[in-house]
Amino acid sequence: MADPSVLVQSLTPAAVHAAHSLIQPYVHRTPLLTCQTLNTIASTPQSPEALTGTPFEGQSPANPKFHFFFKCENYQRIGAFKARGAFHALLRLIAERGKEEVQKRGVITHSSGNHAQALALAAATLGVPAYIIMPEISTPSKIAGTRSHGAEVIFSGSTSVEREAVVEEVQGRTGAILVPPYDDFNIICGQGTSALELEQQYGELLAEKPQLSIHQESKALDAVITPIGGGGLNAGVATFFSDKTTKVFGAEPTFEGADDCRRGLDAGERVPAVSTLTIADGLRTPVGLLNWEVIADRNKVAGVFAVTEEQIKAAMRLVLERMKVVVEPSAVVGLAVCLYNEEFRRLVEKEDPEGWDVGIVFSGGNTTVEAIAKLFG
Amino acid sequence: MADPSVLVQSLTPAAVHAAHSLIQPYVHRTPLLTCQTLNTIASTPQSPEALTGTPFEGQSPANPKFHFFFKCENYQRIGAFKARGAFHALLRLIAERGKEEVQKRGVITHSSGNHAQALALAAATLGVPAYIIMPEISTPSKIAGTRSHGAEVIFSGSTSVEREAVVEEVQGRTGAILVPPYDDFNIICGQGTSALELEQQYGELLAEKPQLSIHQESKALDAVITPIGGGGLNAGVATFFSDKTTKVFGAEPTFEGADDCRRGLDAGERVPAVSTLTIADGLRTPVGLLNWEVIADRNKVAGVFAVTEEQIKAAMRLVLERMKVVVEPSAVVGLAVCLYNEEFRRLVEKEDPEGWDVGIVFSGGNTTVEAIAKLFG
Repeated sequence: MADPSVLVQSLTPAAVHAAHSLIQPYVHRTPLLTCQTLNTIASTPQSPEALTGTPFEGQSPANPKFHFFFKCENYQRIGAFKARGAFHALLRLIAERGKEEVQKRGVITHSSGNHAQALALAAATLGVPAYIIMPEISTPSKIAGTRSHGAEVIFSGSTSVEREAVVEEVQGRTGAILVPPYDDFNIICGQGTSALELEQQYGELLAEKPQLSIHQESKALDAVITPIGGGGLNAGVATFFSDKTTKVFGAEPTFEGADDCRRGLDAGERVPAVSTLTIADGLRTPVGLLNWEVIADRNKVAGVFAVTEEQIKAAMRLVLERMKVVVEPSAVVGLAVCLYNEEFRRLVEKEDPEGWDVGIVFSGGNTTVEAIAKLFG
Repeated sequence: MADPSVLVQSLTPAAVHAAHSLIQPYVHRTPLLTCQTLNTIASTPQSPEALTGTPFEGQSPANPKFHFFFKCENYQRIGAFKARGAFHALLRLIAERGKEEVQKRGVITHSSGNHAQALALAAATLGVPAYIIMPEISTPSKIAGTRSHGAEVIFSGSTSVEREAVVEEVQGRTGAILVPPYDDFNIICGQGTSALELEQQYGELLAEKPQLSIHQESKALDAVITPIGGGGLNAGVATFFSDKTTKVFGAEPTFEGADDCRRGLDAGERVPAVSTLTIADGLRTPVGLLNWEVIADRNKVAGVFAVTEEQIKAAMRLVLERMKVVVEPSAVVGLAVCLYNEEFRRLVEKEDPEGWDVGIVFSGGNTTVEAIAKLFG
């Protein structure tokens, strides 16, 4: 990869628009949903007890007002926003190297999650062989899902050293081109297309029902919040909004140090490694190098906030029971920040007592009834 | 109630249209969704093993083709189609007796489920006091849900005798007017409005994307299937389609005799009582008298089919995991018939080898993560 601090300069809203034109025929324009019940809950102060053991204990709970706009990437192809980045990266490869070369060599990645399925789908759609390196311990449903798109699944050990060795071995044999899961220019631009649609759909929705905005007269979303794992989605969304008034925030789990990005911003230096088993399994990776360049830029990302496992579960329960929408735990971390992170709630109240229109990206919905049972049983 | 065999003659499509005009400002026009994955699964023959122990054991599994159109009443107000009937019944009461009298006397019903919340919401919206008789053993979330709409919850024992006594006592004290949960002309017409919208939305969807139909040129839905508990939804839907080519089917659980309607049709006589603890908890009641008059009319309802608890769970899993839509077990009984009832699948294959466009009413989505955990943990 080129020097991230140089490459980041090419990450512009125009690059996201270009990505959108390219991938539009291949991805869903996922729905933008609202939910009066969640607006009401979020616009009610937390109980004083909820602040016990936090720096805000004994203080009066904040009273921010929210109207939410949920960008439902759980209804995206393969059930997650990752389809955007994967299609974009592959279409760019084909544009740059020619279809013949890419089809001959194939593509390769290492992922046990949504990126694996996304690349498998994109490759199958565009007639390109795909080699997916997965840890032997991957859940059978994810292996089956990846294979169902015709990709060749190759197993490795779980450590990054073992994984890299298998990638190199397969690349040596096939010449397959690596498509990284998040730390990549084209992946970031692809994921950013969710923000482009979010902004468009917000405008369309308010043109029809202006009362959905918290403001008498709304011009733009006040803020958008997304989860941060590797940071591809957040960096893409922040890139899209970088020349607009809409503020972009990131959300992470606190569990076992999964809030590497938040901690890195505090320390002024990216945290290079994380080892966490947070229930938000899409957010167990440290933020990528190029992604860090975007997220650490205060003009692009206004702040990163973190929530506990219990707060993630509480938000997931509300989305399942009240919105009747199936999301994976990683998807609701942004909503959990709005509902339960008192620091964020104080910020919103202070910035605008009237409240904020907030776009929330539900990043994916790939869970199982067994996984839900394990969380709530 | 007037003689059901006379009253049924007034249950016409026009009555459903009139109900729709009346309730439209108060209920959601719920979305009509499609799902390619579910079409594919339903259009694949069952495995021969799936037929073991059934009358079709050893025979070659049927190969019907389906395109589904899901009317998502889980996204209706209070999370179920019951809002339609409750608003309609109450608006009719007000039209007939005057707002003053109804507001003075109030309304009363006995229900531990969705009808309780629906009537509570309708009453609160129209400024009418509501008294809801619930068994003491009702789940706390349902009691809280009913109270959250401002209704007065009054507890009774679980038997119908105990319940009736409390209803009479409260009626004697308040003069409250009874709004029955399903065995009622206005309730049936209200529930039938879901069919009116289903047909409209099917037309709108195909005008935009004709390829969503299984037919080269589609004029109408081939069939619609709904769950049958008390039978208000199915009777309403059948009433709406009674002068059209679309066939209407009903679906029930087999567990502990919950398929009272199917058994009654076989025997030529309504089964008056049922005692079942099927997981489809909305379908534990026997079909009502007026509802039976509609459902037993072969010109209105083409057949009623039943499925096992495991088949209901399998359908629910598919809807949660593949469609990412939260439904309660009762809601997927119609889908389970299409997927797993071999008799129904043979019928579809025989009627049209090209396949059927089938409307499926997802009746509600009022479940909890704990209930999902109990089913699948």
